[in-house]
Amino acid sequence: MTRFASFADLLSACLDLPGGHAEAAADVASREGRLTKPPRSLGRLEEAVAWLSLWQGKSPPRLATVEILVFAGNHGVTAQGVSAYPAEVTAQMVANFATGGAAINQLAQVAGAELRVVALDIDHPTADFTLSPAMDEAEFLEAVAAGYEALSPEADLVVLGEMGIGNTTAASAISAALFGGGGARFAGHGTGIDERSLKRKQAVIDAALERHRAILGDPLRVAAALGGRELAAILGAALAARHLRIPTLLDGFVCTAAVAPLAKLRADALDHALAGHMSAEAGHRLLLQELSLRPLLDLGMRLGEASGAAVAVLILRAALACHTGMATFAEAHVSGKDA
Amino acid sequence: MTRFASFADLLSACLDLPGGHAEAAADVASREGRLTKPPRSLGRLEEAVAWLSLWQGKSPPRLATVEILVFAGNHGVTAQGVSAYPAEVTAQMVANFATGGAAINQLAQVAGAELRVVALDIDHPTADFTLSPAMDEAEFLEAVAAGYEALSPEADLVVLGEMGIGNTTAASAISAALFGGGGARFAGHGTGIDERSLKRKQAVIDAALERHRAILGDPLRVAAALGGRELAAILGAALAARHLRIPTLLDGFVCTAAVAPLAKLRADALDHALAGHMSAEAGHRLLLQELSLRPLLDLGMRLGEASGAAVAVLILRAALACHTGMATFAEAHVSGKDA
Repeated sequence: MTRFASFADLLSACLDLPGGHAEAAADVASREGRLTKPPRSLGRLEEAVAWLSLWQGKSPPRLATVEILVFAGNHGVTAQGVSAYPAEVTAQMVANFATGGAAINQLAQVAGAELRVVALDIDHPTADFTLSPAMDEAEFLEAVAAGYEALSPEADLVVLGEMGIGNTTAASAISAALFGGGGARFAGHGTGIDERSLKRKQAVIDAALERHRAILGDPLRVAAALGGRELAAILGAALAARHLRIPTLLDGFVCTAAVAPLAKLRADALDHALAGHMSAEAGHRLLLQELSLRPLLDLGMRLGEASGAAVAVLILRAALACHTGMATFAEAHVSGKDA
Repeated sequence: MTRFASFADLLSACLDLPGGHAEAAADVASREGRLTKPPRSLGRLEEAVAWLSLWQGKSPPRLATVEILVFAGNHGVTAQGVSAYPAEVTAQMVANFATGGAAINQLAQVAGAELRVVALDIDHPTADFTLSPAMDEAEFLEAVAAGYEALSPEADLVVLGEMGIGNTTAASAISAALFGGGGARFAGHGTGIDERSLKRKQAVIDAALERHRAILGDPLRVAAALGGRELAAILGAALAARHLRIPTLLDGFVCTAAVAPLAKLRADALDHALAGHMSAEAGHRLLLQELSLRPLLDLGMRLGEASGAAVAVLILRAALACHTGMATFAEAHVSGKDA
């Protein structure tokens, strides 16, 4: 028995969302105004601290326990030749995560975060979604529940990411299904395909959109038909984080596409989430615009694995250090503005 | 006796610049290509590691000793009412740096950097440059030398910043003198002046450009006439870093304007420098474009004190951790591209 009994049951959970803690955020804003700097001169650092406190309900907020969750899955659509790497790389990279050799291992350490990798039935790829839905209802709900239950309730911040050869094709298909424009709008070079393969990837997405056109108005069915297990798990983890009011950093294109159905169901569903970075994968900029998400970083990264969001954790640590450590004008005997 | 005897002597030093260490950078690039990620998928993180190694001459590069140098100075032009804060705030903030209460104290700690603050004769503001040159030749060269000599030769990375009430007016004046457009192009709200004060600030800059029009074609005389001691010291420190081949992170608008004369004298003079961030101060974007510098971060910060560049140190630490800690495809038994 998974946590969610049906699409309808999950839908209820997606529509029943708590808001933030306004008092904590107001308290943070009040202290911010007394610190020895011109008002708002730390820009997004100040906004980030306010956002952490809004969702944690703590003033000051804290970043003692930062959890990075990387979900891994395999995709039947790789049979269509949409990736530069063979599907077995997913399992090889999961092994690389376990032995500490991947980028995210290094970045988690620098960010002072715990890394947890959840491999989702990677020996059994989802179905090729040009032929049938990637997952049936039960498979999808199981993956969503795996993500939902992976979250530690005591985390101060959760960082979401993924690994799955072929999953930029799934992300592009979901994005096009939810926001229009077809394969040409959202498909990109992924891990590094050439122009001929990009054309094929676009055609694969368009074929999938055509095959599943009957369900394109239903965001959860879109996630099941065009997504993958790791994307479904990210959706579940983001939903759990909202229910628990844990601030959440999103990684790149695939991660953002995975949670996009939540925003389609309820416009404020991602208010507890911040886009950690803008990926160099072309579709991400468009998707962030559709979701009105402003990325913290734009470093030309396109690796996945939660790597961009893990770097963004460093920005949050810098922001919090300023907020908690700075002196006020009164403490430091510094004259105020227009004094 | 200062290190530089005359404008001509300093000019020689500005034109005699070493290049980078191509072999170390090539070695870094070779390892980068073998790490378990698609080629170039870490984007600017990879570029940053290559840049560190190019100037350090080390493969891998290192960030064991990161030095933040904040220079402080006062400006006679504050008599014209160009700042939202009184001039005594410069000294008060220098005291705040000493007791650890400023933003840069917190950020230096997070970045694992040593902070050194050099106050330059702050009891004696430079002259009001609407009336005469801010500094005469001797005063300017002394400030340049103070910056030049402040640099620790053993630093792996130097981060440059400033504090000085009124110094966005000086930075705007230098920028307009070197790149044209007058006060309207580069002047911004600084620490938070209103629209009326902004008009005054623009007029003050235009008056200064008119008064000093005879020397606007000479970048070093521009720096003396329109700058300030902390800007001159930053120029000196950036020049010392180049002579010592120490990679250098620039902070925001004032810091960038301070080194702009170097680039005007020799187009490749800032190749050892990276723009840490893009300030919210309006002129910075334009100045970065004029200098072909791409900022690492764009977080809406506009505080100075090296604060934006200190946050950028975190990006360099993340980049270096990936480069040194990741496994190669062979070590991790991961299949390569198009395998």
